[in-house]
Amino acid sequence: MSAITAASATAASATDTRSPLPVLGRDVLVPLVTGGEVTYAALDYAASAPALQRVWDDVAAYAPYYGSVHRGAGYLSQLSTDLFENSRKDVAAFLGCRPDDQVVFTRSTTDSLNLLAAVLPHGTRVFVFETEHHASLLPWQQREGVEVGFLSAPRSPREAVETLDRALSAWRAEGPAEGGSAGPALVCVTGASNVTGELWPVRELTEVAHAHGARIVLDAAQLAPHHPVDIAASDVDWVAFSGHKLYAPFGAGVLAGRADWLREARPYLAGGGASRKVAVRVREGVGGVDVEWHTTEARHEAGSPNVIGAYAIASACKALTEAGFEGLVARERELIARVREGLTEVPEVRVLSLFGEDAPRVGVISFVVEGWNSSHFAAALSAEYGIGVRDGLFCAHPLVRTLLGGEPGDQGECGAPEAAPGERSLNAIRVSFGAGTPDEHVERFIGAVKELVRDGAKWTYRTEDGRCVPDRG
Amino acid sequence: MSAITAASATAASATDTRSPLPVLGRDVLVPLVTGGEVTYAALDYAASAPALQRVWDDVAAYAPYYGSVHRGAGYLSQLSTDLFENSRKDVAAFLGCRPDDQVVFTRSTTDSLNLLAAVLPHGTRVFVFETEHHASLLPWQQREGVEVGFLSAPRSPREAVETLDRALSAWRAEGPAEGGSAGPALVCVTGASNVTGELWPVRELTEVAHAHGARIVLDAAQLAPHHPVDIAASDVDWVAFSGHKLYAPFGAGVLAGRADWLREARPYLAGGGASRKVAVRVREGVGGVDVEWHTTEARHEAGSPNVIGAYAIASACKALTEAGFEGLVARERELIARVREGLTEVPEVRVLSLFGEDAPRVGVISFVVEGWNSSHFAAALSAEYGIGVRDGLFCAHPLVRTLLGGEPGDQGECGAPEAAPGERSLNAIRVSFGAGTPDEHVERFIGAVKELVRDGAKWTYRTEDGRCVPDRG
Repeated sequence: MSAITAASATAASATDTRSPLPVLGRDVLVPLVTGGEVTYAALDYAASAPALQRVWDDVAAYAPYYGSVHRGAGYLSQLSTDLFENSRKDVAAFLGCRPDDQVVFTRSTTDSLNLLAAVLPHGTRVFVFETEHHASLLPWQQREGVEVGFLSAPRSPREAVETLDRALSAWRAEGPAEGGSAGPALVCVTGASNVTGELWPVRELTEVAHAHGARIVLDAAQLAPHHPVDIAASDVDWVAFSGHKLYAPFGAGVLAGRADWLREARPYLAGGGASRKVAVRVREGVGGVDVEWHTTEARHEAGSPNVIGAYAIASACKALTEAGFEGLVARERELIARVREGLTEVPEVRVLSLFGEDAPRVGVISFVVEGWNSSHFAAALSAEYGIGVRDGLFCAHPLVRTLLGGEPGDQGECGAPEAAPGERSLNAIRVSFGAGTPDEHVERFIGAVKELVRDGAKWTYRTEDGRCVPDRG
Repeated sequence: MSAITAASATAASATDTRSPLPVLGRDVLVPLVTGGEVTYAALDYAASAPALQRVWDDVAAYAPYYGSVHRGAGYLSQLSTDLFENSRKDVAAFLGCRPDDQVVFTRSTTDSLNLLAAVLPHGTRVFVFETEHHASLLPWQQREGVEVGFLSAPRSPREAVETLDRALSAWRAEGPAEGGSAGPALVCVTGASNVTGELWPVRELTEVAHAHGARIVLDAAQLAPHHPVDIAASDVDWVAFSGHKLYAPFGAGVLAGRADWLREARPYLAGGGASRKVAVRVREGVGGVDVEWHTTEARHEAGSPNVIGAYAIASACKALTEAGFEGLVARERELIARVREGLTEVPEVRVLSLFGEDAPRVGVISFVVEGWNSSHFAAALSAEYGIGVRDGLFCAHPLVRTLLGGEPGDQGECGAPEAAPGERSLNAIRVSFGAGTPDEHVERFIGAVKELVRDGAKWTYRTEDGRCVPDRG
């Protein structure tokens, strides 16, 4: 074991586990390629956050009482039905929903935005910045009868607002395609970028959208775990977020907001639970079935609901609210400042930013290291320091392409650490953290970046199945 | 507390918990409306089965190691990615998949069949018996360019095969609509009815389907938890099932089978994970985005996968395989025989059946009680005996209508126990059980049915929010 690794291991064994909210996995030990073990530093919250201990405890306490929901007559069915429907109310309270809003349980933000795409009225024009995550970028053009306008990457929040205003003005100036008024429009925008962590001017974009008669959906996947989201106050029409980024990784997500388009559209999934009455009309030929669909959230939740997933989200919402976002945000700001300060001390590091250094952000920071392939760097952080970050293009190819200034390359492959200085990185490294992150993880990360840049990797790596992994000979 | 209730409570306290596989909730106590508590008798497995203890233990052991899958560079991300992909292999082994089959993780059987509906080639004709669960009945006609033929309820397995053969012959005789050969056809059939528990002649139906050039999907939601399913041996093209009925209630399901239609169709969900490369083509106008989609299972699994849900299913598959279906089936046959024998002793009970008394079946039995509204009966089983069954139409309205011989009524409402004998029941009661069911639950159920029919309910009930509940004054 090298001296460096030993030092890392010692630091880890004296771990400072201070964090606002305890999470699962905080004591997990992982092996180092150079020998020994360290506690795992989970710094990939932007992909999936660990479960809050509180969420796990709630799920574990409920699990023996799990039962079929909705039509079951037994005590546990009634209990589970109440738990599921109360989870919906808890999420509505967390999001500050308006009285008539619906809260639909989905599988994830991706699923939520696909659901919204599926219920858009025919002829809707969607506006989306090309800087969005693929989940926000791609669902719309899957729909027949829906057109999508992709907006150029803005370099400031103000430019974002101006770009949207211009696009919506042009759309209105086009006038109605087939007589009557222009059709509906929807703007889709992220609350916080999954690449840069930067906050988007949601309130101003909402004002512009509404001024032009458009609706707006907030992709809060990266925002909701870090900042309060208030539908009524922000006036957005819908909010989407994921349980697995909100410390509740049990396969559920949420789409909450205006009921009208949800109520009027064809059900997202056809099946039991969504249907009130079903009768076959024609038999033994090409026929049809007459269905009366629910108009509540159940319309889009066919099949047995993921009760545990919904309850886990509700539990996380309550835990975050009770802990208080004021303290959580203040604590996270400290960590962000520490990471940025540490990275600034390494001249080879370039932090990726759309809105500039001082833009407000959540705990999501992407960067490249001169002379390093990002996948190689990320592999060394894991294998030599027990730090889990993410490398790649973060399901936001157009944005990362803009930030890197050119075509991205193959993700996951090793690159030569001895690559010529100044060579352009083909992908990036992302470090992200949140309510479960102790100081030690952030300090270890900064120390590791400095050591790797200064001394190089202690081990050799090779590409295997598209992953950069330690070469074990 | 009445003597009867006291007797029930005593029986419960001396519970025989012998069951092939331990499940969560086996010691849960529930209150009786007449006073005291009993262990809960979960007899609604056909809606949602309790988690196997083994599944829960596996999930609990993994939970601290949970991490982002696919592109994460950290140790726990790699571990979670391997766990997720190995779960896919375990499910493939459980189902006896062919080498080229895909195993797509969905949210449920309903979601799996909606996925299959979404990938059908344009012009596909679907054939489905009207006796199917709504999840099998309804997804197909949601698709533009897909026609559905609904087949009349057969009264024997042989009639089912003949009906399908006739329908497929007629379809082929219609000939191609627009030149060329007739388009593709798909048959959707349940392995075991969620109402009667009766087994369908899957092998014979598959032979008929294939003889006519049609494909077939097996809805194994009720079959897989009770019987081995072997895709290769049965020769079906796809199988769909749900985790929550297979002792793994963590929000995941499976669609497994032929890769071609899955690979060629538009992705079910658009977003990250499903897309390999994304580039915006036109900006500031109505434009488009160029996407290269994956051709593996990832194509239809956009968004962060439900790792815990998939792992839970894999764990259940292994537990069932290791326990051995031979023993599980034999044990379940004993329970089925006991329930049927017990019900036969009550002349007021009529068991619902499509294929007749001696048809082979899984542990799912529906019945009506002369003079009782089914919801009322089910409410009394719960409140006075701690037994959880289901009342209603079981998301299979056309089938239940056929079995009851007329229009169903409002589900969930109380009816007068003193209703005139011979009055037709408006809905039904379903009792269902499986690998976690001890003898005592079944004995308590039979005793309770006999007592209720003989002595009437000990309590009064009223309709509240569409549920029949004890009237607490």
